[in-house]
Amino acid sequence: MLKVGIVGGTGYTGAELLRLLSAHPKVQLTAITSRGVSGPVGALFPHLSERVLLRFSEPRLETLSQCDLVFFATPNGTAMTMARELLAANVKVIDLAADFRLREVAVWERWYQLQHAAPEVVAQAVYGLPELYKDSIRTARIVANPGCYPTASCLGLLPLLQQPAVDLSHVIIDAKSGISGAGRQPQQHLMLCEASENLNAYGVSGHRHQPEIEQTLAQVAGKKVNITFIPHLIPMMRGMLATIYVQTSLDGDTVTDLYQNYYADAPFVAILPKNQAPHTKNVRGTNFCHIAICEPHHKTGLVIFAAIDNLVKGAAGQAVHNMNLMWGFDETLGLNQLAVVP
Amino acid sequence: MLKVGIVGGTGYTGAELLRLLSAHPKVQLTAITSRGVSGPVGALFPHLSERVLLRFSEPRLETLSQCDLVFFATPNGTAMTMARELLAANVKVIDLAADFRLREVAVWERWYQLQHAAPEVVAQAVYGLPELYKDSIRTARIVANPGCYPTASCLGLLPLLQQPAVDLSHVIIDAKSGISGAGRQPQQHLMLCEASENLNAYGVSGHRHQPEIEQTLAQVAGKKVNITFIPHLIPMMRGMLATIYVQTSLDGDTVTDLYQNYYADAPFVAILPKNQAPHTKNVRGTNFCHIAICEPHHKTGLVIFAAIDNLVKGAAGQAVHNMNLMWGFDETLGLNQLAVVP
Amino acid sequence: MLKVGIVGGTGYTGAELLRLLSAHPKVQLTAITSRGVSGPVGALFPHLSERVLLRFSEPRLETLSQCDLVFFATPNGTAMTMARELLAANVKVIDLAADFRLREVAVWERWYQLQHAAPEVVAQAVYGLPELYKDSIRTARIVANPGCYPTASCLGLLPLLQQPAVDLSHVIIDAKSGISGAGRQPQQHLMLCEASENLNAYGVSGHRHQPEIEQTLAQVAGKKVNITFIPHLIPMMRGMLATIYVQTSLDGDTVTDLYQNYYADAPFVAILPKNQAPHTKNVRGTNFCHIAICEPHHKTGLVIFAAIDNLVKGAAGQAVHNMNLMWGFDETLGLNQLAVVP
Amino acid sequence: MLKVGIVGGTGYTGAELLRLLSAHPKVQLTAITSRGVSGPVGALFPHLSERVLLRFSEPRLETLSQCDLVFFATPNGTAMTMARELLAANVKVIDLAADFRLREVAVWERWYQLQHAAPEVVAQAVYGLPELYKDSIRTARIVANPGCYPTASCLGLLPLLQQPAVDLSHVIIDAKSGISGAGRQPQQHLMLCEASENLNAYGVSGHRHQPEIEQTLAQVAGKKVNITFIPHLIPMMRGMLATIYVQTSLDGDTVTDLYQNYYADAPFVAILPKNQAPHTKNVRGTNFCHIAICEPHHKTGLVIFAAIDNLVKGAAGQAVHNMNLMWGFDETLGLNQLAVVP
Repeated sequence: MLKVGIVGGTGYTGAELLRLLSAHPKVQLTAITSRGVSGPVGALFPHLSERVLLRFSEPRLETLSQCDLVFFATPNGTAMTMARELLAANVKVIDLAADFRLREVAVWERWYQLQHAAPEVVAQAVYGLPELYKDSIRTARIVANPGCYPTASCLGLLPLLQQPAVDLSHVIIDAKSGISGAGRQPQQHLMLCEASENLNAYGVSGHRHQPEIEQTLAQVAGKKVNITFIPHLIPMMRGMLATIYVQTSLDGDTVTDLYQNYYADAPFVAILPKNQAPHTKNVRGTNFCHIAICEPHHKTGLVIFAAIDNLVKGAAGQAVHNMNLMWGFDETLGLNQLAVVP
Repeated sequence: MLKVGIVGGTGYTGAELLRLLSAHPKVQLTAITSRGVSGPVGALFPHLSERVLLRFSEPRLETLSQCDLVFFATPNGTAMTMARELLAANVKVIDLAADFRLREVAVWERWYQLQHAAPEVVAQAVYGLPELYKDSIRTARIVANPGCYPTASCLGLLPLLQQPAVDLSHVIIDAKSGISGAGRQPQQHLMLCEASENLNAYGVSGHRHQPEIEQTLAQVAGKKVNITFIPHLIPMMRGMLATIYVQTSLDGDTVTDLYQNYYADAPFVAILPKNQAPHTKNVRGTNFCHIAICEPHHKTGLVIFAAIDNLVKGAAGQAVHNMNLMWGFDETLGLNQLAVVP
Repeated sequence: MLKVGIVGGTGYTGAELLRLLSAHPKVQLTAITSRGVSGPVGALFPHLSERVLLRFSEPRLETLSQCDLVFFATPNGTAMTMARELLAANVKVIDLAADFRLREVAVWERWYQLQHAAPEVVAQAVYGLPELYKDSIRTARIVANPGCYPTASCLGLLPLLQQPAVDLSHVIIDAKSGISGAGRQPQQHLMLCEASENLNAYGVSGHRHQPEIEQTLAQVAGKKVNITFIPHLIPMMRGMLATIYVQTSLDGDTVTDLYQNYYADAPFVAILPKNQAPHTKNVRGTNFCHIAICEPHHKTGLVIFAAIDNLVKGAAGQAVHNMNLMWGFDETLGLNQLAVVP
Repeated sequence: MLKVGIVGGTGYTGAELLRLLSAHPKVQLTAITSRGVSGPVGALFPHLSERVLLRFSEPRLETLSQCDLVFFATPNGTAMTMARELLAANVKVIDLAADFRLREVAVWERWYQLQHAAPEVVAQAVYGLPELYKDSIRTARIVANPGCYPTASCLGLLPLLQQPAVDLSHVIIDAKSGISGAGRQPQQHLMLCEASENLNAYGVSGHRHQPEIEQTLAQVAGKKVNITFIPHLIPMMRGMLATIYVQTSLDGDTVTDLYQNYYADAPFVAILPKNQAPHTKNVRGTNFCHIAICEPHHKTGLVIFAAIDNLVKGAAGQAVHNMNLMWGFDETLGLNQLAVVP
């Protein structure tokens, strides 16, 4: 059994890791840490109490060093302070925050307004988008788990990036996210009475996921891809939809075929029939990404929809997928749940 | 007092008309008709029972002819069968459905899959967007009240349409609407268990509001404006947001000023500070439209947000506004409610 | 015009007072105070910006002394520190918090865990339930505005309290409230992701509104009324329903008549037909209370339902009603809005 | 592998059966029938498409006779028309509707307003509440799966029914249910715009689950138990809470111990600490029932809370539990999912 630790187990992504890993047949949950909370996990998260019997502990290197793998489900800026020591102790690391996602440390420091504590580790980190970097992930010692918006956005765009008939100088990503993406820390705008029966864009002049999306797109395209990225907050708990507008002369059938081929071996990506827009509820609680190619009226380009659960495929589920790859397990092990609908 | 009748009082727009008109100081509600429902309005709509004492009656020409004004809050295809006779009887008409919105009858017939019953009346009808056609509305005998998406979309675009520095060959409107826009008739996809905690695009290959938007934009621009229009269903009751992507070299400050000037005399349009994306809840239950101009990262064009309540500014409130203009009342009479937040 | 100040204008009840008073024809909003927020009200509450042009100011006695009336929309324990001076300066006071609700200071101090700062003012305060104490309110200099649960619970029980055929030794109040009753301060359990799609009881072993309910019931009954009071949190913003179980040999028709007579002169209480359970949405945003008497199967006693909007009839609306009474205005002035449904 | 058929696979309980059974290691889904829908299950329920590859077929006896077990997830009155033939063909039956729940056919016919088509089968049917009838279920050929309200209500009351210190002449069950309990057929009051942001009681003068609750309680108590049962509709998709008011001199600690002992061998019932009211979200999507005993203020009796997911423990999950018992599988097989929170 793989001994697994989780640093920062009190947020939504930490709880999702616990939900998924507690049902994973190859994993032994070994340590859950929290700076602020002690006591049994089930006291904080009664929905986990039937299966997770661990107690929260302080995040100490001695404890974590006894794990084979440590997940960081912490705020940005935490994993970078512990990764070097864990790697040195032969512990592999998957960071669900942003510390190791951007290849250029200077860019990271500008967007995250922090000095990076482990720039040399950045170079070792593999960006954990399995549909793109599966082979590198298999041998990685540290994985930077992608952000939720980058996951949906990139999965929605990858197959187009080397198509000459696609105009990469102007891609628009109108993204919509449920509230849980903003985390579990109390903030006024996340209260039910503020966020319910409401809809608004945010981060309009620059969201931290923009450089992360651009980095992946550029790497695959072999050139800069210009994106306009506008995220919106939707009055629901989970779910994310990227509505992507692309200028291209390709038609919807051709592109649907292209996507089906591209993702033929991707167990968590489903390509829906042309013009059948995905519903986020159908992937809720799951690691699936539903993608559809649509031809708008007048066929002015194409519209691509990519729907995920921001906490699963956009966070904890993708992290478990990466773990499966790193240890050579079946990719889908522990990730077979269907959505609970309604 | 103006004697007012409402045909089709059992849907959401009918109920909104009742709510607004019952508080209007110049209006005497005279007839509410329904083909399927009889009895007091308050039995169907208990929230109106304290102020609306009318009973539903059959939609008969004799009754309606005694009104000064008749609102049609009916499905598409109803107003066109009664408008000629009402106009002949010197009754003015405001149709909240689509029967008189499109100037070209052939286009209307193609999109609505009906034969038009009163093509000659179409020519007389004035499109009831007060911010654009105030003078014509004042003297109109029949007003075609705009659709909700066209209202938000056009208000968000009007000031740009004669700017040479704006590329009108590629405008993207990513629109989001609460569920009430789909009406009160039971349909499975509108049930709470289907629509709650979910998000999806719909009508992706062609929505009936597309030609309506294009007609207005073209008339103002003096040329065809190419739009890609994708509506989405949001898990909330009311509220509509149009996120509009425009290619332009103009900057956000310039355009914010432009909008403030353009709408200086529009009592229901508020221009928010640059980059301050509007929240639909702030216009819920009101006739206001909140607009903001945002500069996305890399300043790749501009993003314009227009937020309305789809049932008020997008339907019943705008209809009352049109009535105020037609009778020379103060534009805002009966339309001064603030949003009920939270 | 009545010069009105509001202390604590940044919470939900403060915002509701602003919404209602800004439309009140006899009121001039004079001061809105906040310790933590400055700037225009419309910056904090954009939904008020079209009509409320005031700025937040520090809560200073000099400013407030120039008002005719000051509302306290503050946390418990604030009004008691300023009421004496305001009254001495001939300013009338309506406290929407609990400081002056309980006649016995010792009981208040035990439930609220505070030392009372103005016990002698408690004796002067009139409990502001207009349906019960209209005459005293008319001449009051300080009014203790009732809590939301006490408002719904007492309105649902008042007509029965002097009926010998009703067993007052065992009354059960199963109360349900929307989230807004818990206020606008960020708390984790009020976040959309915590409160949405969930339902739970709270305060099960003792809620502060229990002694307040008991005080009113005992005063009317002339003896102690034993209640079991269990509040529940409902995943919605506004609305409160008290489901009240009473042992009695009276039948539903008799009691419905009794209620209709009792509330014949109460402009905000509507008695629905027997067995027609009220829906909270029909009173949302309004000052109405909808009450119905139901006969359960086997006719084991009666079940009484009382539905209000917790922020209006349960807080700000009732406070404005009290103001109307204190100044001899028409009771319903400024309180005629209908619910915005859906 | 157990060959399983489902009659009526297009409603919410049918979809839940598919979700649960498709992950059950001992089950082979063999037939899914629908009168109105054909084609692949995944076309109707995209959330099942990754794992359920069956197509809907007509409900024909020949097909169903090849199953070992047939679940009826149909409206009331369907299973009774097919059960006799299936049993004769040696197929076991679990009916999720009400056809076989009431022992007295005359009572059933009065409440359900239908003539019973198979009264002699009623006598063979075992009421499928595993916590009470485990042994009979093990050998049953036909199981009447309990209703959702009866499941929560009875689990909340069972341990008290033979306690002399409990007054069974007056038990109050104030029950609250999410919308999904009303099914997937379009009905106006179930639309998001009607049910969201609202709360109401319904069926106040008699709900069909009342005789079912009374039957179980009487059987265990050995005498009639008088209940007042009032169900409420809560604006959420899933979840059910029974708030039960009981007159007793027993204290909360004693009763908490009593419940812990009573349910010591019940794998799906968890007794929470005294006064810790359960949250329905913690059992969402799961087969668990969370129960807590609370002492209200003044200790006027006890309040018992029982929370379940109405579609799982209140329907499909309990049916799978019954199947596990009938075939001697581990009770929890296929039922180990934790709640997806948030």
